[in-house]
Amino acid sequence: MRIRIKNPDIMTLNAESQILSGVDIFIDAGMIVALGEPPEGFVPDETIDATNHLALPGFFNAHCHSPMTFERGWAEDLPLDRWFNERIWVAESALTDEDVYWGAALAACEMIRSGCVGFNDHYFYMGEVAKVAAQSGMKASLTWCQFGIGDDKEIGTNLDGALKFASELQSSSEGRIKTVLGPHSPYVCPPDFLAEIGRIARETGLAVHIHASESPEQVANSLKSLGKTPIEHLDSCGLFETRAIVAHALYLTENDISILARKNVSVAHCPLTYMKLAMGGTDLRPLLAAGVNVALGTDGPGSNNDMDMKEVVRMATLLQKFYNNDAEALAGDLPLRMATANGARAMGFADSGSIEVGKSADIALFNMDSPHWYPKHNLTANLVHCAKNGDIRHLLIAGQPVMKNGKILTLDEERITYEADWRARAMVQKNMQIVREYKA
Amino acid sequence: MRIRIKNPDIMTLNAESQILSGVDIFIDAGMIVALGEPPEGFVPDETIDATNHLALPGFFNAHCHSPMTFERGWAEDLPLDRWFNERIWVAESALTDEDVYWGAALAACEMIRSGCVGFNDHYFYMGEVAKVAAQSGMKASLTWCQFGIGDDKEIGTNLDGALKFASELQSSSEGRIKTVLGPHSPYVCPPDFLAEIGRIARETGLAVHIHASESPEQVANSLKSLGKTPIEHLDSCGLFETRAIVAHALYLTENDISILARKNVSVAHCPLTYMKLAMGGTDLRPLLAAGVNVALGTDGPGSNNDMDMKEVVRMATLLQKFYNNDAEALAGDLPLRMATANGARAMGFADSGSIEVGKSADIALFNMDSPHWYPKHNLTANLVHCAKNGDIRHLLIAGQPVMKNGKILTLDEERITYEADWRARAMVQKNMQIVREYKA
Repeated sequence: MRIRIKNPDIMTLNAESQILSGVDIFIDAGMIVALGEPPEGFVPDETIDATNHLALPGFFNAHCHSPMTFERGWAEDLPLDRWFNERIWVAESALTDEDVYWGAALAACEMIRSGCVGFNDHYFYMGEVAKVAAQSGMKASLTWCQFGIGDDKEIGTNLDGALKFASELQSSSEGRIKTVLGPHSPYVCPPDFLAEIGRIARETGLAVHIHASESPEQVANSLKSLGKTPIEHLDSCGLFETRAIVAHALYLTENDISILARKNVSVAHCPLTYMKLAMGGTDLRPLLAAGVNVALGTDGPGSNNDMDMKEVVRMATLLQKFYNNDAEALAGDLPLRMATANGARAMGFADSGSIEVGKSADIALFNMDSPHWYPKHNLTANLVHCAKNGDIRHLLIAGQPVMKNGKILTLDEERITYEADWRARAMVQKNMQIVREYKA
Repeated sequence: MRIRIKNPDIMTLNAESQILSGVDIFIDAGMIVALGEPPEGFVPDETIDATNHLALPGFFNAHCHSPMTFERGWAEDLPLDRWFNERIWVAESALTDEDVYWGAALAACEMIRSGCVGFNDHYFYMGEVAKVAAQSGMKASLTWCQFGIGDDKEIGTNLDGALKFASELQSSSEGRIKTVLGPHSPYVCPPDFLAEIGRIARETGLAVHIHASESPEQVANSLKSLGKTPIEHLDSCGLFETRAIVAHALYLTENDISILARKNVSVAHCPLTYMKLAMGGTDLRPLLAAGVNVALGTDGPGSNNDMDMKEVVRMATLLQKFYNNDAEALAGDLPLRMATANGARAMGFADSGSIEVGKSADIALFNMDSPHWYPKHNLTANLVHCAKNGDIRHLLIAGQPVMKNGKILTLDEERITYEADWRARAMVQKNMQIVREYKA
């Protein structure tokens, strides 16, 4: 399909970091084929009027558990341990594949509305999340969460199941869906399991998505039991030999940062979760200075509480300024780059993350009629700090319009909000009853 | 005018803190006269269908400089001193009354869109801000900023002018507009000037709106030169004998907190500014425990960068959790109460801040169709964390619909964004030229 996006301003976020004014975008077969003048013989099948709209490369959500929309508002105002043990674990204890489907679909609606074109998801019943990615038109990097303990027979939670999922779904939906390996974390997975994952990653070329270094206690325990930091441990298990994404990585040593940089490991930073669960902060400046690819994520809505990547962009810079007592931290368009090109790189979508000829047409169009866009002294600052997800009127992913004029075209949003609402409430009630009976 | 709001859910935020489901609100002559069943003989002039909308008492913005929308995006990624000296002062150096009018009008559009019914403003050419308040239908507490130094002949910036403004506009626009005294701060205003303001406040009954204790240096300088903290100094100058609002108050001693509580002084807390300018945090828990009335504000858009009170509500709880390493801080509906009843109390609007019979009909109606409102495990958490200003479809202030179906009725938003945009850009260019010539 050939599409003309007519008359937008464009924030390219490419190497030149240009802001273009009133320049048409021409799309053919999912790719940006020209800016400004149409290629010879180009006749659009569809034209999107983007007058007074800002075109931005779509966001990549580098770490989430999208089906956890089912726990939105379910575990409020609690510290991490009580949040998990008293509320989240109870709600999730008898999760079904249907719960996962509707939860991920709800999350996809939110992500599309916040200008997000791709997400990196780490959860259970991931075939259902893959269905949502396929239907929604979104790009996704998916993995079954693997603990490496117990003898769970459920396909997916054991390694065979996770590998079967990874090989069957790899590069499906015209390449929009990628699959990776998802060991939960070095504090849950035994070292021999992590080493096995490392071996499989090297053999298969599969990327790795894992949590690590979320608390000082995790680092202290790792040093005590293994003589290594969590990052050193993961490196020694061979988990950084293929593309790898470490979520959080809040508590790092200089050597950790050096490993992450040398091994091209991406860090997925989720500021709203760190604030909400009072997990403490981290200084991203040394990582960025060392060349670590830092991307941004929402995390799961049980903690953060939504899937709004636009909000994550603003929070990333505000929290770095505050935490580091440095008003110059994450200046200019850096938080936007972290949410676009860095996220695309982290997830292996090399042709995404900027608006330029030859790139995938992953484009969010922000309407600029609202008062918070004026005056236009600094369009970048207005976008980072003032733009709302409600400003996003159109979203294209790989050249496909998935939202037009504020209406999602690929998913039945009304049905999804209805199903997700009653099913989530039924799920937590049922699971609380199961836990009560188990304890009794 | 008689209005029926049909079928909303209601978060009362009154003493009982109820959430009512599908309960009509009946309004007569600006007041809420019934919930549920209409009063006898009630015939509405107008009915607003609020099915699947949440009715919330409108927000009070307890500290702002609304015309500083003109500096939105003008002073980015800079620490407080450079932010002010290199950018803000230059932009403001030859401010005109017209600049102030259009800047405040732009801010009013933003505030209405974020569910804000009243604002507490401290700036220059305040007659223009009063015009905007009168036209927009908003409630406002207004004061000329007074430095108490120099011999500025401009009416308003000297005390006579500020008092003339205060007496002429007091209780105008059917009581929607209140006027107060606005000495800038104890670090700018000389002690004898503050003592004079204290004397005038006691004689006239005028309330006081002032900045204080924004940095450790301010506190140290005050202790060194006066032997008192800024709060002790303001108290000794008699500034807390009438209603008083202290903006920021980030660096307080136990005795400061005790003074604020005993003298019924309100604190206006503006978390986005503290993050953006890296000003450091404060622990609100001891203030709240001592009974200090803590309200929330946006501050000026030169720092924060917008006028979105919904965002301030979310940031208030997230930043307290993060800064205090306490996920239980500002739990439940507390941040909403700070933005509603506490703000109304701070600004002297005793009949605002909750939805109950006998209160002023200051009501924001949030549409709950969007996916971020589901599932409804906890409507309060969904409102605090997930609701966006774009969800707000209708706003009533003192019973007057100022926004309906997302359209502002009282102001010409299209004209205002146009005028504010070119005028703000022209202002900063002109003033930069003036400063360059002055320096040359």
